Amino acid sequence: MKFQLLSEDRESNARTGRIETARGAIDTPIFMPVGTAGSVKSISPDELEVLGAQIVLANTYHLCLRPGDERVARLGGLHKFMGWERPILTDSGGFQVFSLARINKIEEEGVKFQSHIDGSRRLLSPETAVAIQRNLGSDIMMCFDECTPYPVTYEYASESVKRTIRWAERSKEASKGSGQALFGIVQGSVFTDLREMCLENLVRIGFDGYAIGSLSVGESKEQMLEVMNRLAPLLPTGAPRYVMGVGTPEDLVEGVRAGIDMFDCVMPTRNARNGTLFTYRGVLNIKNSAYADDPDPIDSECGCYTCRRFSRAYLRHLYICRELLSYRLNTIHNLYFYLDLMAQMRAAIGAGNFTGWREGFYDRIGPGG
Amino acid sequence: MKFQLLSEDRESNARTGRIETARGAIDTPIFMPVGTAGSVKSISPDELEVLGAQIVLANTYHLCLRPGDERVARLGGLHKFMGWERPILTDSGGFQVFSLARINKIEEEGVKFQSHIDGSRRLLSPETAVAIQRNLGSDIMMCFDECTPYPVTYEYASESVKRTIRWAERSKEASKGSGQALFGIVQGSVFTDLREMCLENLVRIGFDGYAIGSLSVGESKEQMLEVMNRLAPLLPTGAPRYVMGVGTPEDLVEGVRAGIDMFDCVMPTRNARNGTLFTYRGVLNIKNSAYADDPDPIDSECGCYTCRRFSRAYLRHLYICRELLSYRLNTIHNLYFYLDLMAQMRAAIGAGNFTGWREGFYDRIGPGG
Repeated sequence: MKFQLLSEDRESNARTGRIETARGAIDTPIFMPVGTAGSVKSISPDELEVLGAQIVLANTYHLCLRPGDERVARLGGLHKFMGWERPILTDSGGFQVFSLARINKIEEEGVKFQSHIDGSRRLLSPETAVAIQRNLGSDIMMCFDECTPYPVTYEYASESVKRTIRWAERSKEASKGSGQALFGIVQGSVFTDLREMCLENLVRIGFDGYAIGSLSVGESKEQMLEVMNRLAPLLPTGAPRYVMGVGTPEDLVEGVRAGIDMFDCVMPTRNARNGTLFTYRGVLNIKNSAYADDPDPIDSECGCYTCRRFSRAYLRHLYICRELLSYRLNTIHNLYFYLDLMAQMRAAIGAGNFTGWREGFYDRIGPGG
Repeated sequence: MKFQLLSEDRESNARTGRIETARGAIDTPIFMPVGTAGSVKSISPDELEVLGAQIVLANTYHLCLRPGDERVARLGGLHKFMGWERPILTDSGGFQVFSLARINKIEEEGVKFQSHIDGSRRLLSPETAVAIQRNLGSDIMMCFDECTPYPVTYEYASESVKRTIRWAERSKEASKGSGQALFGIVQGSVFTDLREMCLENLVRIGFDGYAIGSLSVGESKEQMLEVMNRLAPLLPTGAPRYVMGVGTPEDLVEGVRAGIDMFDCVMPTRNARNGTLFTYRGVLNIKNSAYADDPDPIDSECGCYTCRRFSRAYLRHLYICRELLSYRLNTIHNLYFYLDLMAQMRAAIGAGNFTGWREGFYDRIGPGG
């Protein structure tokens, strides 16, 4: 994996770049749709291509439980399994094991937990998390980390972040010879000194990219932005910078402004399934009875398949009837919006007009998104 | 609507034809995917086109409850509403009102019932059923009929079929000036003389096509085939013949052999969502653990999107995880199979080889399908 910085904004830390992988290039800043269990919910790989997705994220935790990473390896790897030939980033399972599973013990070796599906006892450690990601054959792997809860004491966060650094060293060791890129994850909760200490140590170990973890986990929006704005410029310039699990359209704009290159979040896909649709004029809830007779598309300026073909009235009807097509048409629209938002930002940065673009974005989207 | 008979088999009653409508031609014999509430579940109109669907069926009962037929009319009709430009056949609501709603009273005027969705009190009669179908703007409407239950006494079936004939006269009257075709429905349960009496009366009234109703409602397979084989050749030669709500692949083959031109059934779509997949070598249940490591497609000779792109192992994984993509990929396969089956039969009849084709079909599919 190679990363090339293409342009830098003069008035902010925003930047464009290009990640080259054996499975194709990724223009940054980029949003990665989430394909939890090897499928971006309701969407086919062909639709993802038409939407212009350049990379998707898949979850180590979910895939190691079902269908099992060794099975995926036997079947030729995750790309072949899910019919997606472009790059895949796999997370380390850290976030899910702390949010979904029943944790039995966090030890130096790793995390002992019980599957949320069948209760089976498992161990996720730097070595097993990397082994799973090697079996999946992703293009970018993530170090196994402890996702610090929020709120957390300084003492716990300090112990946790030191363990995450030791786990990062072991993750790197385990990744050797895989031919897959490996990103380190900066932890430390809302404590600036811990975050910076973690970052310094990760840079010392050396990774292909650097991520900020445990944001959007309960802290205030101000705290999140503070960590992002303070930390992003400190991440190495010559490597991709990734904020995990963030966020709203506004969060992406602020993340890009802070100098972040990569994002993932379930928000566009999950909200689509709940009938919440994103537009440049704010969000729209399709179940609202105001749309029952509305012949217009979600957004008349949107170029997605859903907006080109269907009315709000039809989309509301599908949602109310819980028709399967509802989830899909809504997901297509929201992913198109997120990917278009990133493309607009890349173009604005490239044209030296990110600040003006950002002002226009907030003017259009209005207060409170 | 015009119907042209193109070829007739010498060894059976099988035939090919063409129905011309303002929205395009339909080659018969044809299978109509069911789009209950204005959506063939999980499938987009574009996918239906790629699958080669020439006509879809939509349900009067469901659409009059949600989103309401007057609303659909205000929005430009059902074709525009659901984004499907090819022909649509709407049923009369008869079957659903007797199977889904709480019936309050069957009177000469019509059927008083309570909606299964919100309990609201409604009347479905020849006049209201046709008015709803006029609002929907379908290409082919169906007369309002009483779907006789099974088992039923001769006395009840006799009273019921006479009422259905009177309702057919009123349906025809209500349809005048609509520019939409109207089909009559032959009732009479398993009683041959009642079926024949009904047919004679419908022909006397005169319709654009003739359907056989209340088959596959609980009677034995032998009884169903007996009614179909006896009745189909008696239906007018110069109009399309339609068996409603039937059936399995074998039922379609036997229906075509009996001289039927049109079929609809939820089986391919509903079974897809239950993981039951049709092939020319019999059915396959994708949740079977035998497929967990199977790299082959559902059917290596099938040309559908699902078979060209995905393994049984992936499809099983999606099904087990209840991924939304599972329903859709399975539905694409099953509809492709049903539509391909009809295309094979049309080609065989046209080539004068239907009997040979049918023998080959049963040889391949094996005993018990």
